[in-house]
Amino acid sequence: MSSDEASAQEKEGDPTSGSIELLPGGRTIRGVLGATILDVLRENGVPIEGSCGGQGICGECRIRFVEDPPEPTSSDVAQLGASEIDSGWRLACRHVLDGDARIEVPRASGALDQKARDDKETTECALHPDVRARSICLARPSRDDPRPISERFRAALDGTACVPLAALRRLGELRDGDGQLTAIEADGEVLDACAGHTANIYGLAIDVGTTTLAVHLLDLATGRQLGAAASRNPQCRLGADVIARIAHVRHHGNDGLEELHSAAIGGLNALIEQVAGEASVPRTSICRATVVGNPTMVHLFLCVDPRGIDRSPYVPVFRDGVRCRAQEVGLGIHPRAVVETLAAVSAYVGADIVAGLLAVGTGGEGETTLFLDIGTNGEIVLTSGGRRIACSTAAGPAFEGASVVEGMPALDGAIETVRVLGGEVDCRTIGGAPAIGLCGTGLVSAIAELRSAGVIEASGRFADGGAWWGERLDGEGKRRRFRLTDGHAPVHLYQSDVREFQLAKAAVRAGIEIQLDHAGLAAQAIDRVLIGGAFSSRLSSEHLVSTGLLPEIDPSRVRLVGNVAGQGAKRALLDRRLVDEAEGVARSIEYLELSGDERFADLYVGQMALP
Amino acid sequence: MSSDEASAQEKEGDPTSGSIELLPGGRTIRGVLGATILDVLRENGVPIEGSCGGQGICGECRIRFVEDPPEPTSSDVAQLGASEIDSGWRLACRHVLDGDARIEVPRASGALDQKARDDKETTECALHPDVRARSICLARPSRDDPRPISERFRAALDGTACVPLAALRRLGELRDGDGQLTAIEADGEVLDACAGHTANIYGLAIDVGTTTLAVHLLDLATGRQLGAAASRNPQCRLGADVIARIAHVRHHGNDGLEELHSAAIGGLNALIEQVAGEASVPRTSICRATVVGNPTMVHLFLCVDPRGIDRSPYVPVFRDGVRCRAQEVGLGIHPRAVVETLAAVSAYVGADIVAGLLAVGTGGEGETTLFLDIGTNGEIVLTSGGRRIACSTAAGPAFEGASVVEGMPALDGAIETVRVLGGEVDCRTIGGAPAIGLCGTGLVSAIAELRSAGVIEASGRFADGGAWWGERLDGEGKRRRFRLTDGHAPVHLYQSDVREFQLAKAAVRAGIEIQLDHAGLAAQAIDRVLIGGAFSSRLSSEHLVSTGLLPEIDPSRVRLVGNVAGQGAKRALLDRRLVDEAEGVARSIEYLELSGDERFADLYVGQMALP
Repeated sequence: MSSDEASAQEKEGDPTSGSIELLPGGRTIRGVLGATILDVLRENGVPIEGSCGGQGICGECRIRFVEDPPEPTSSDVAQLGASEIDSGWRLACRHVLDGDARIEVPRASGALDQKARDDKETTECALHPDVRARSICLARPSRDDPRPISERFRAALDGTACVPLAALRRLGELRDGDGQLTAIEADGEVLDACAGHTANIYGLAIDVGTTTLAVHLLDLATGRQLGAAASRNPQCRLGADVIARIAHVRHHGNDGLEELHSAAIGGLNALIEQVAGEASVPRTSICRATVVGNPTMVHLFLCVDPRGIDRSPYVPVFRDGVRCRAQEVGLGIHPRAVVETLAAVSAYVGADIVAGLLAVGTGGEGETTLFLDIGTNGEIVLTSGGRRIACSTAAGPAFEGASVVEGMPALDGAIETVRVLGGEVDCRTIGGAPAIGLCGTGLVSAIAELRSAGVIEASGRFADGGAWWGERLDGEGKRRRFRLTDGHAPVHLYQSDVREFQLAKAAVRAGIEIQLDHAGLAAQAIDRVLIGGAFSSRLSSEHLVSTGLLPEIDPSRVRLVGNVAGQGAKRALLDRRLVDEAEGVARSIEYLELSGDERFADLYVGQMALP
Repeated sequence: MSSDEASAQEKEGDPTSGSIELLPGGRTIRGVLGATILDVLRENGVPIEGSCGGQGICGECRIRFVEDPPEPTSSDVAQLGASEIDSGWRLACRHVLDGDARIEVPRASGALDQKARDDKETTECALHPDVRARSICLARPSRDDPRPISERFRAALDGTACVPLAALRRLGELRDGDGQLTAIEADGEVLDACAGHTANIYGLAIDVGTTTLAVHLLDLATGRQLGAAASRNPQCRLGADVIARIAHVRHHGNDGLEELHSAAIGGLNALIEQVAGEASVPRTSICRATVVGNPTMVHLFLCVDPRGIDRSPYVPVFRDGVRCRAQEVGLGIHPRAVVETLAAVSAYVGADIVAGLLAVGTGGEGETTLFLDIGTNGEIVLTSGGRRIACSTAAGPAFEGASVVEGMPALDGAIETVRVLGGEVDCRTIGGAPAIGLCGTGLVSAIAELRSAGVIEASGRFADGGAWWGERLDGEGKRRRFRLTDGHAPVHLYQSDVREFQLAKAAVRAGIEIQLDHAGLAAQAIDRVLIGGAFSSRLSSEHLVSTGLLPEIDPSRVRLVGNVAGQGAKRALLDRRLVDEAEGVARSIEYLELSGDERFADLYVGQMALP
């Protein structure tokens, strides 16, 4: 019997603990009576969302009591719908373990998962993190050599490192140690000194997405990833997209800015605590963080006013990478850890895109590459013949599953792929759970298949019934809808959803066309299309072409590359030289401002139809 | 009639205000009824001590109600003696103006005054403060030139300055301004940006003395001194000298260190508020501070553990100058202001001595100079033939007026000079006030005169009576004493005071002798003796020689130079190159450690006698 089993058995007889049976799967975990369900789940390593630190605010830690759900709390009522409450859904942070329970825990959401898990490929890059730990041994001062510890310390570091006040204070504390020290150096300055010679140093790659925050913990000595976590960006409650968040700042001034800044930092700190805790890494051993995000997100992360971004001429306060200390932004790692954001191109083409380019490695080899990062905004970078041209189009929230009537983020139960064959509609959901809504990937898939089956006309209208699908259509006008799944709570695609898709894809496609035109290229000249962002790898390349989101090119040239922004952040974390390279990449990119382009308006209208 | 007079007349009829007649002098000021006397005095520009911010803790704001003193408060009782309370002394911060009052306000104390006022000579030095304000005009971004404000800003500063996050945040706030900005630069980095082009920049020279804190406010653009203030170091209540303060840290650990640090910073911040307020300078316009003090004081100012200093081998954590930001130490000026401490030589020869050497400009010219800084410790630097030799001797508190039975700091009423002639004893006090005690200068003066008159023997004993002074002597053994002044509360010199003096002067003199011996020089080779520190300029050079504190040299070669540490700090503030020069001076000094020197013990005993 392993010691784990022994300890579990021991607990079993313990009258102060209770058990939770986790469904689906049936694994049973134990926890102390009176602890919140959230804490018990986390202590047992069960992945669960939650970015507000158990305050009942973010609504992300929802679980379902399969039997005897407790009375709903006011937070449950505020965060969950009445029908969810009736079905036994509750917030795990608002209920304590008071005996034995059987609950259903949604799998960590697909999108979040993906942001956090696109990991295995990493660390083929060189290790030059520019943070190092050096073991040194200092002789104690004596009458013969009364040099202070700071001078011995600097001499041991070849006399070059600057020893700032914070490090002097540490040396003062270590004065009585046994002379074995580890110096943590970053960029020619001593970041800290610790007793002994065992200090490991760690770094974070942080992806501040509009919708999702993701954090990756890496060992800077080996390049190994030790953990990752993602959660919904708590800023969402202050505005769904960057425009709404800038409006929040405009409305509430500096307080609004601070509020958004704190929301992001609070969410990140919860993730950092989680990921560091799971890897048993002290947070103060995290000495570097590399941060990517779109320009608005990076401004808010740094607490810099983003109000220039959404008004003509659309100018952020800065585009360059910014380097600061963790304590300046409030990240809960070593207070003097070096935090760097990567460079951006313009108000709407940000560090996330530059990081993505670093990760996918476009350009230079004579290849013509189209890189799309698709989320609420669609950023497009065309690389050809040594030139890089970027633009950004406002795709709207449809691709993220928002603004879709029965839309949802890429969480468990979201329809991800749709297949229409011989009058049958086959929907696959994330996690194999019963279908409860439609995510962005599912939206594209449904429209592509229904268009191909003739259910949707080129104009986007549902074709009038009569064929096999007649019984699946109901409603009128915008509320006309197609039933995708059966059962007592079917999921529908609405006429208005198709319109939302058309608007979004027309925006992206018009951007691509303008870029090709600007570069004097035909679509067929594109060697590779790389799609990062909201879409999951389950999305079929054919569907991207058949819906007209991409121009007519061979679908085999299209690759869904996932969260390349996070990948790029990790690379830049492990190889500091890439931070400078990012600056070069960003400055080398020609930016096409579409908002004043008349051709864009024409192309946009022209691309509304479905091929 | 001036507007001031008009306003005073206006107030006179005001039933909500009261008057205070100030004695001596009879000037009348007015204040709002209900305001504390301290506030009324300060509002009217009456100089008065007080370092605790009006909390009744420091006991420094004592005033005497000449008529109808109010009931004493518990703070009065805690801070003042019963006889003082009987005489009408109260704390100005603990009593409010409730009508008209006649009060006596002690002149700002001699020592404090001197620390703060040694000013007029300054600013002959070059102006290279290494902080500058540059007016720049930025064009607004446009579609044709969409460069962010940060890039325009950096370009306007020749592209060289680094723009840290704090400055980016300011640029974000200034985004909507009219394009006129002032950039404050320090050492190649942008410290801040402000709207408009009127920003003046200021600096502080700070002298963190064991007993007294002093702050000088200077205009960094002109070098002009705008104000100065001094107060008792609030650390005094945690320990009278550096040894007692280090003991406090040893006893209370990190809490004790923080407590001492906060006490000093709190005292300095009160002074900064006062001096900036009086000069109408916003504290955030203070962008640089240069700090001097002995090594323990500098460690405590920076919150670095000083425990290495008082135990063999007497090694501080650092000797070099330290550069940090105001926010790192808690100084209430611009949070990113550059704060620099000057370099020290050893655990007991500190930045104050190095600053003093910068100010008096010893050495180099082939002259042999002896520089003494006399306080609780006596630091001695002998400069000769390009060599500088320093040592430190523990003089004890006698020269500061402490450890003397009726001793007191150099405040109003302290006997400063004593003259014995024809059986008459003539005592002069600071401020001409009735004598209430003996300060360090007075102690030396009294002993010199009484020795010369034969009242004190070479051994230090009071000669047995019989002559004119018989009736002035009473008591036995250590309590035997000489009456210096007459009246109902005479001041005495005790036998034990003479012993204290002998110990102190023997320590200093032995240090001088060892240095001369080390340098192979005779006393007569000394061209100049410069005495800084506790002694006032009233002290006669003859007395310093006749008591044996100095070797037998021509008294005309002796000069009392006052608070040269503060002078040096001011010079280094105005000319940043002197900070580096201080580093060079500190490293060029040979340090003689006396504590293990056997000759020192012998010389010390040998120098106890009075010549």
